[in-house]
Amino acid sequence: MLVLRSSPASPFGRKVKIAAHHLGLTDRIDIVAADTSDPTDVLRQQNPLGKIPALILEDGTVLYDSRVILEYLDHLAGSGKIIPNEAEKRYPTLAIQALADGIADAALLLVYEGRWRDEALQSATWKTHQQEKIQRGLAAAEALPLDGTVDVSSIALVCMLGYLDLRFAGKWRADHPRLVAFLDDFAARVPSFELTRVKI
Amino acid sequence: MLVLRSSPASPFGRKVKIAAHHLGLTDRIDIVAADTSDPTDVLRQQNPLGKIPALILEDGTVLYDSRVILEYLDHLAGSGKIIPNEAEKRYPTLAIQALADGIADAALLLVYEGRWRDEALQSATWKTHQQEKIQRGLAAAEALPLDGTVDVSSIALVCMLGYLDLRFAGKWRADHPRLVAFLDDFAARVPSFELTRVKI
Repeated sequence: MLVLRSSPASPFGRKVKIAAHHLGLTDRIDIVAADTSDPTDVLRQQNPLGKIPALILEDGTVLYDSRVILEYLDHLAGSGKIIPNEAEKRYPTLAIQALADGIADAALLLVYEGRWRDEALQSATWKTHQQEKIQRGLAAAEALPLDGTVDVSSIALVCMLGYLDLRFAGKWRADHPRLVAFLDDFAARVPSFELTRVKI
Repeated sequence: MLVLRSSPASPFGRKVKIAAHHLGLTDRIDIVAADTSDPTDVLRQQNPLGKIPALILEDGTVLYDSRVILEYLDHLAGSGKIIPNEAEKRYPTLAIQALADGIADAALLLVYEGRWRDEALQSATWKTHQQEKIQRGLAAAEALPLDGTVDVSSIALVCMLGYLDLRFAGKWRADHPRLVAFLDDFAARVPSFELTRVKI
């Protein structure tokens, strides 16, 4: 069995779970909850960066981050299922995944700002800097020709949008009607999106 | 021509430059300096995340981040040159790249802490958290069987170590003799490492 270390709220862990469902690999993966804030969690030995998701293979090799794990799962499923093999599609698809992950990274830094620092010690300019990354990123995503394909780009986008819903009360929705329609369509067609939603 | 937006000190931009040299692609790439702190730099339209490196293709497609660009350059050079195609090597190699990039990310967050916040507003616990990622990551890298292959994992490692030299006065060197030897060997065999060193 493969072992996935993750936590329910992680947007990057959710990418792995949705990919595993879509590729029919959930029977091969045990999910073991990880607490990135707990120094005694063995996670920090499995992934020295202390980050989730991390996937432990049967020979002990540990794969991270989510992008490496998604490519490995695609390989296990026969290749070309969630990452196109043809170059003219592959690299733009990987760049959209990087865009979505980058927006999620900025959102996580905003969450960490509140989690690690008292209000008086928070930096307004840092927060604005991250918020602007999110806004520009969402505007670029809104303009994408999203065609409903389930691949690493759409999986990363829905996990990022789901994380904005979870942590920022869905404020992104008002200005991004095409992304709302894209997310609704994905959620209606891909049951693992609802299955992996955090109940709060 | 391809256009690379980067800056001399970026460890991730350096990965692209070393890969381009190693793969014989420098004649096909114009480097245009980017300033991530300048809101008027067109970079923020090219990559909405405002991050470097970004590679602009002839049809206008913009690829980022460094990992996507390195895979694209490997494809241009015929595939399998800096990313092994065989699965048993490919995924561990990509995970080592993710480890090196993750250490560099933690180092960048430490640098940003000083750049964005006055001393009194900096968080000691946040800095310790990032420093521990770097320490655990370096300890894991020190234990790797580094065999001198030039691939995305070794390129990412040398750029990360070069960045620690640049920003943290090479403090990592005392406790990591195998990484010092690895870096010296790489620098001696791969001229683009010295070519891309920032002179301070």
